[in-house]
Amino acid sequence: MEVFIEPIGRLMNEFSKLPGVGKKTAQRYAYKVISMSEAEARAFADAIVAVKRRVRFCRICGNFTEDEVCDICKTRDKSTICVVKEPKDVIALEKLHEYKGIYHVLHGVIDPMNGVSPNDIRIRELLERVGEGGVKEVIMATNPDVEGEATAMYIAKLLKPLGVLVTRISRGVPVGSELEYADEVTLSRALSERKQI
Amino acid sequence: MEVFIEPIGRLMNEFSKLPGVGKKTAQRYAYKVISMSEAEARAFADAIVAVKRRVRFCRICGNFTEDEVCDICKTRDKSTICVVKEPKDVIALEKLHEYKGIYHVLHGVIDPMNGVSPNDIRIRELLERVGEGGVKEVIMATNPDVEGEATAMYIAKLLKPLGVLVTRISRGVPVGSELEYADEVTLSRALSERKQI
Repeated sequence: MEVFIEPIGRLMNEFSKLPGVGKKTAQRYAYKVISMSEAEARAFADAIVAVKRRVRFCRICGNFTEDEVCDICKTRDKSTICVVKEPKDVIALEKLHEYKGIYHVLHGVIDPMNGVSPNDIRIRELLERVGEGGVKEVIMATNPDVEGEATAMYIAKLLKPLGVLVTRISRGVPVGSELEYADEVTLSRALSERKQI
Repeated sequence: MEVFIEPIGRLMNEFSKLPGVGKKTAQRYAYKVISMSEAEARAFADAIVAVKRRVRFCRICGNFTEDEVCDICKTRDKSTICVVKEPKDVIALEKLHEYKGIYHVLHGVIDPMNGVSPNDIRIRELLERVGEGGVKEVIMATNPDVEGEATAMYIAKLLKPLGVLVTRISRGVPVGSELEYADEVTLSRALSERKQI
């Protein structure tokens, strides 16, 4: 006889796929769902399906959007592009309510040890955007770790011949950490004190 | 402009309803779902709906089941009933693969401070089960905390006139803790060293 009946075991297995969720936590989450009303559980399930159905990547910047082009690309100052590794880094910067430009999400950084080459991330798309003209500054806001720094330097070298100012967020961001987890003051300072590279 | 687009914000809000999940964790979970394939997300959502649709409480013991009567009630020795607070306590005991009897889930304990009286938990149902005959022993396995002890004593007083042996899991279980989190050796010892009350 199984300790967990099938529907509970199956839901626990699904919760276990979430980052940092072990068996005990998955069990707690499953019990919580069992204690929900039918409507609440349905809303939860719908939200999961909806996020897959409705969220896609902006054709221009690569950020999350529900439309072909995201609201940031549609409405903001196009003379400055901030380059980040992942969509969650856009969220971190947007929370400051300071930056008025647009973004470019690389969807990764150059990482030869893990087989990620410059062709595997959205560098070509960035060069095309800058090549189309109208861009005055590109801010490199990749993580201040080895791969992030290397990627920033690599892209800076490609962008400079295009006559655009390339800057790097300042070292106010603690080295070796992840952009996503920086406190807002530090991240704000890193943005305002950016230096040409 | 919202920092999170609606479907992501909505899913984060749903994840935040799970126990111990804050905004940052909800965000990580939401990103994980976005990175899943459509089929994986669908399976996750289905598991949530299925658990609500298929899991109900056993008519006899009150444990989780997919049928009217659970597999434990159907197949096991009916002369011993182990009384627990919640279905998750059944799981904790079943993991030992030692106990051969059946269960009675109270779905709570007497807790006057929080307005839970003896009529609010499944005590009447337990008395009816014992009154039908065939039961030799009732093991009180409520949590070894104030409410659990009080509930065990209260029920024991009601059961004794029915001529049934009433026992309490031994104090091998650390006092003040929750049954669910006891290590298996401690829980096994508490079960084997039960004493008449």
